[in-house]
Amino acid sequence: MTIALKEGYQPLTEATAIQLIKELGYFHAHDQLRCREIGDGNLNLVFHIQNENDKALIIKQALPYAKVVGESWPLTLHRATIEGNYLKNAIPLVPELVPQLHHTDEVKALTIMEDLSHLDIVRTGFIAGKSYPNLSRHIGEYLAKTLFFTSDFGCNQQVKKGLQQAFSNPELCKITEDLVFSDPFHESDTNDFEPELKGTVERLWQDDSLKLEVAKLKYKFLTHGEALLHGDLHTGSIFANETDTKVIDPEFAFFGPIGFDIGQFFANLLFQAITRTEENRDIILSHLHQVWKTFEETFTTLWHTSSVETFTRTKGYLEYVLKEYFKDSIGFAGCELIRRTIGLAHVADLDGIEDSSRRLASKKIAIELGRQLILQQSNITSTKDMERLFEKVKRGE
Amino acid sequence: MTIALKEGYQPLTEATAIQLIKELGYFHAHDQLRCREIGDGNLNLVFHIQNENDKALIIKQALPYAKVVGESWPLTLHRATIEGNYLKNAIPLVPELVPQLHHTDEVKALTIMEDLSHLDIVRTGFIAGKSYPNLSRHIGEYLAKTLFFTSDFGCNQQVKKGLQQAFSNPELCKITEDLVFSDPFHESDTNDFEPELKGTVERLWQDDSLKLEVAKLKYKFLTHGEALLHGDLHTGSIFANETDTKVIDPEFAFFGPIGFDIGQFFANLLFQAITRTEENRDIILSHLHQVWKTFEETFTTLWHTSSVETFTRTKGYLEYVLKEYFKDSIGFAGCELIRRTIGLAHVADLDGIEDSSRRLASKKIAIELGRQLILQQSNITSTKDMERLFEKVKRGE
Repeated sequence: MTIALKEGYQPLTEATAIQLIKELGYFHAHDQLRCREIGDGNLNLVFHIQNENDKALIIKQALPYAKVVGESWPLTLHRATIEGNYLKNAIPLVPELVPQLHHTDEVKALTIMEDLSHLDIVRTGFIAGKSYPNLSRHIGEYLAKTLFFTSDFGCNQQVKKGLQQAFSNPELCKITEDLVFSDPFHESDTNDFEPELKGTVERLWQDDSLKLEVAKLKYKFLTHGEALLHGDLHTGSIFANETDTKVIDPEFAFFGPIGFDIGQFFANLLFQAITRTEENRDIILSHLHQVWKTFEETFTTLWHTSSVETFTRTKGYLEYVLKEYFKDSIGFAGCELIRRTIGLAHVADLDGIEDSSRRLASKKIAIELGRQLILQQSNITSTKDMERLFEKVKRGE
Repeated sequence: MTIALKEGYQPLTEATAIQLIKELGYFHAHDQLRCREIGDGNLNLVFHIQNENDKALIIKQALPYAKVVGESWPLTLHRATIEGNYLKNAIPLVPELVPQLHHTDEVKALTIMEDLSHLDIVRTGFIAGKSYPNLSRHIGEYLAKTLFFTSDFGCNQQVKKGLQQAFSNPELCKITEDLVFSDPFHESDTNDFEPELKGTVERLWQDDSLKLEVAKLKYKFLTHGEALLHGDLHTGSIFANETDTKVIDPEFAFFGPIGFDIGQFFANLLFQAITRTEENRDIILSHLHQVWKTFEETFTTLWHTSSVETFTRTKGYLEYVLKEYFKDSIGFAGCELIRRTIGLAHVADLDGIEDSSRRLASKKIAIELGRQLILQQSNITSTKDMERLFEKVKRGE
């Protein structure tokens, strides 16, 4: 399929990236710049540009197609605008937890931002056994602040409707609707799993009570415009080191159910819990508890100090809202565990396990844990419950 | 407050309305036209223009303020565009149940449409004791078709997101958020009730369990973008006679919870059930049963014949969805009963009762029925249950 491009858009090369960034005045004309394309290559070009004094910047440019399936899957360049606008909205709320934004260009579909290459991608670091002690406290705070202040509790309700309109993101939402909620639960060409998992997967496809719960979760994703979500908050979208945390890649942002962001993070911690040996697992489980604890505490504080909604003074409302968010998070985490194991887009936590019997065993745990989380959303009311379920599934009970 | 008007906008007079409609060619230049402004005067001008042969048309023009509180409450003219676009969307779905649309003009904030003056406003007719035998069947069909085909079950999910963006309607939604959900449940200057009701009303304001349920309903209204709602579907927005039904005034349209439209209609039937004598009440109760029955049957047929959502084949999903819609309808009906009794905008069904002790008694029943519907949303699972609750409250149990 040929993709018609908007006038003024041209994918950058390392040479034209250097030219552009000089024109924009971020480096001196006589600087000797080195430029490397460092994108993981699915949807975007990412250029790392550095001068002799090690001052560096990132240019991220959207490609008009999804590379994951070749050039045949066209994908809106508008997602670069969404990403830029999301960052502009998030920077005043969580300045320490997102990259600095230098420049956006809608037509060229690019964003120029802070270089974060002194940090690790958390997924990669986790797989190498690292722990990032501040990660869950930071992500809990990130979730509470970005979600509260774009919800009807923390954002003027008329302003919120304008934001919701501006962040309409149908094409990227469709990827999630299909790849997270629909395809993994039905026979579909986009699914991807080892033949040894066929029986397990087919049992999912025949499981009406599971599919009913997934249908309800998809409906929430389609209809519940609670807050401006990151929309893709897995451990590959987070940079960190011992002290700092930065969330990147908000191109899937839209107004959706609050539990979705939380659930994606839960699930991506659970992949590590599944694959790590017992002695290295505690830090992951403590992240699981800590992220919800920080989210809950921060959200509660904001509820009491920064509400714009008169009913936030009503007894029991906060508890109700938090309970619903948690329940939704559990369900969404379950969907993420399953789709990252048998759907189109996998995680290196599982696929990177070289020993095939251990890899298959881990995948079966991920599927079963996902299934149980989805079916037991209402019974799992704390991260301790989630840990207990994890232990149970891990033991094969 | 002075209201800055967009260039090109000028409120019409009877003379300029005639001039306009001739310029647009809807009548001959030499036609002798009679023009009357027939609006109820809250938010819009409505001109009825007729020639010697009784050919007639309606021009509806939005005013830049809400007259209900004088010129001091500015209100977006964009609602005329919303109204026109809603009709354009509804006409192919329910051509018999909405007025024919001849012309729209965004700048002049007006819509030219079919004259419906051969029909009654249902509220007025109801108060005069009329019955409109086809009303509930028509409204049930109207609800099922307009809601299904703009929901994620009957509308391409990406197209729906575009519609949702186009129907963003913050200012009109705010009226509902304040006047339906917030103000009647708190001490507020906008409330309006007889001193004799003060004790009853203050008990509502102190009722935390009631307010918690109202908070949840308001949150649904704020966040659940299920389908394109009419947004103001009371009996004053419906014209009818013995055979025909036409829904008008969709300027509050936006993507919201499906139960809201259904619940508004339920509640406005209940006002009649409350105020009518026993012998005239049966037709109203049968409308209550029939509107849900027709909605349910039509929605079910569309679910099976016209779905765009793969999960509609999942066992139990339709039943779940209908149950949720019904539950929401009950809660929203409860809010409507209360706000139309003690809030800013009343209904003539109650206010028109001349005998003050009978009027107050009816209002107390409306409030108590509203309260019970809100609190018992989960227990009332059929219109028979709703009728039983009505009888109980009516008997003063």
